[in-house]
Amino acid sequence: MNDDKYKKIVKSIRNFCDERDWSQFHDPKNLAISLNLEASEVLELFQWTLDNKINPEKENEIASELADVLYWLIMLSNHYNIDLLGALEDKMKINAKKYPIKKAKGISKKYTDL
Amino acid sequence: MNDDKYKKIVKSIRNFCDERDWSQFHDPKNLAISLNLEASEVLELFQWTLDNKINPEKENEIASELADVLYWLIMLSNHYNIDLLGALEDKMKINAKKYPIKKAKGISKKYTDL
Amino acid sequence: MNDDKYKKIVKSIRNFCDERDWSQFHDPKNLAISLNLEASEVLELFQWTLDNKINPEKENEIASELADVLYWLIMLSNHYNIDLLGALEDKMKINAKKYPIKKAKGISKKYTDL
Amino acid sequence: MNDDKYKKIVKSIRNFCDERDWSQFHDPKNLAISLNLEASEVLELFQWTLDNKINPEKENEIASELADVLYWLIMLSNHYNIDLLGALEDKMKINAKKYPIKKAKGISKKYTDL
Repeated sequence: MNDDKYKKIVKSIRNFCDERDWSQFHDPKNLAISLNLEASEVLELFQWTLDNKINPEKENEIASELADVLYWLIMLSNHYNIDLLGALEDKMKINAKKYPIKKAKGISKKYTDL
Repeated sequence: MNDDKYKKIVKSIRNFCDERDWSQFHDPKNLAISLNLEASEVLELFQWTLDNKINPEKENEIASELADVLYWLIMLSNHYNIDLLGALEDKMKINAKKYPIKKAKGISKKYTDL
Repeated sequence: MNDDKYKKIVKSIRNFCDERDWSQFHDPKNLAISLNLEASEVLELFQWTLDNKINPEKENEIASELADVLYWLIMLSNHYNIDLLGALEDKMKINAKKYPIKKAKGISKKYTDL
Repeated sequence: MNDDKYKKIVKSIRNFCDERDWSQFHDPKNLAISLNLEASEVLELFQWTLDNKINPEKENEIASELADVLYWLIMLSNHYNIDLLGALEDKMKINAKKYPIKKAKGISKKYTDL
């Protein structure tokens, strides 16, 4: 059976780092820091905007910045042998219970305040 | 043709929000803020550790926290109609050029300092 | 009576922005985003270090980066007319109760887990 | 000569940690992580708001959250023997040159784009 696109990319990231002998730097605390730094770069695209939209001069950068966040997310998942997509599927089931449509429709409150 | 696992989850997230009429809150600036808040929760698992490993009492939380980050990453990708996996594939090609194995092997410097 | 150094700097920041007519951009959400972006730049100085120390090539940047965080902290305090030093004094009194020396000595746990 | 309010609080924080023997946990990387986590808690007060104002149910929390950020800022300054207020004074002089009133008035661009 063929790997799907997500599995292929997980493998290619693992190979990329192995070939460069970078695992020595990749203790998980550093991976978590990098994840945060890249998430900040996404946020930076919205700095000083007044309409809650992305800075129009920076709209072409969003795909690349989101990809950077996913990169570190996969690195952390690889480190802990986590099935990231499976974890999100599990989470969506939990969220469906926490936020039943009847209660949560049109409301932005946290489930504990619903 | 069948959707693969990643596409299925992207669709299920879209449905989840549509059913709850949440798109009104999901301006992209708020999505970027949520992405950062969830990335912080990943980092929090490493707070005060001295060995760069995750706090052992919190190791069982990492999969769920990584899933939360992926959730907002997919929400932002959906908002901008970005093919997130494709963007990461593109990025990996760029990274391979920025960090040639010969130059980057065993070195943690940024490509501009290699 | 003369203003002390902290009050002087709070005033000078207010003047700096008034002269540039920047208050129109300084809605508090944007200030909070800038606070986070500057805090990230502090964290970036520690990226990839394995000994928990600052990257030695970047040690001369730390004072400037910390000053940037304080700048946004004062901007937010000015916006809400908060006496920031007074708020920290109040917090220290609360912390002294949350973390009594007897219980907290040599322990890094959160007060709820002490 | 009497210490001013800022110096008093810097000293009281130093004493607070010494009495609890907490310096062992306070390697600077952990301090920088805590600074970021507290900055996130400030940002969280603005999550899901559509008018760029603070969530009104959380307005009474802002002073306390800003104080938490200042706490870690002072901890980092203490660690590196940095005169934080002096560093900000220096920064303000640099900013005055980077953003001359004539050029920067009413414009939110970064100085490199002015």
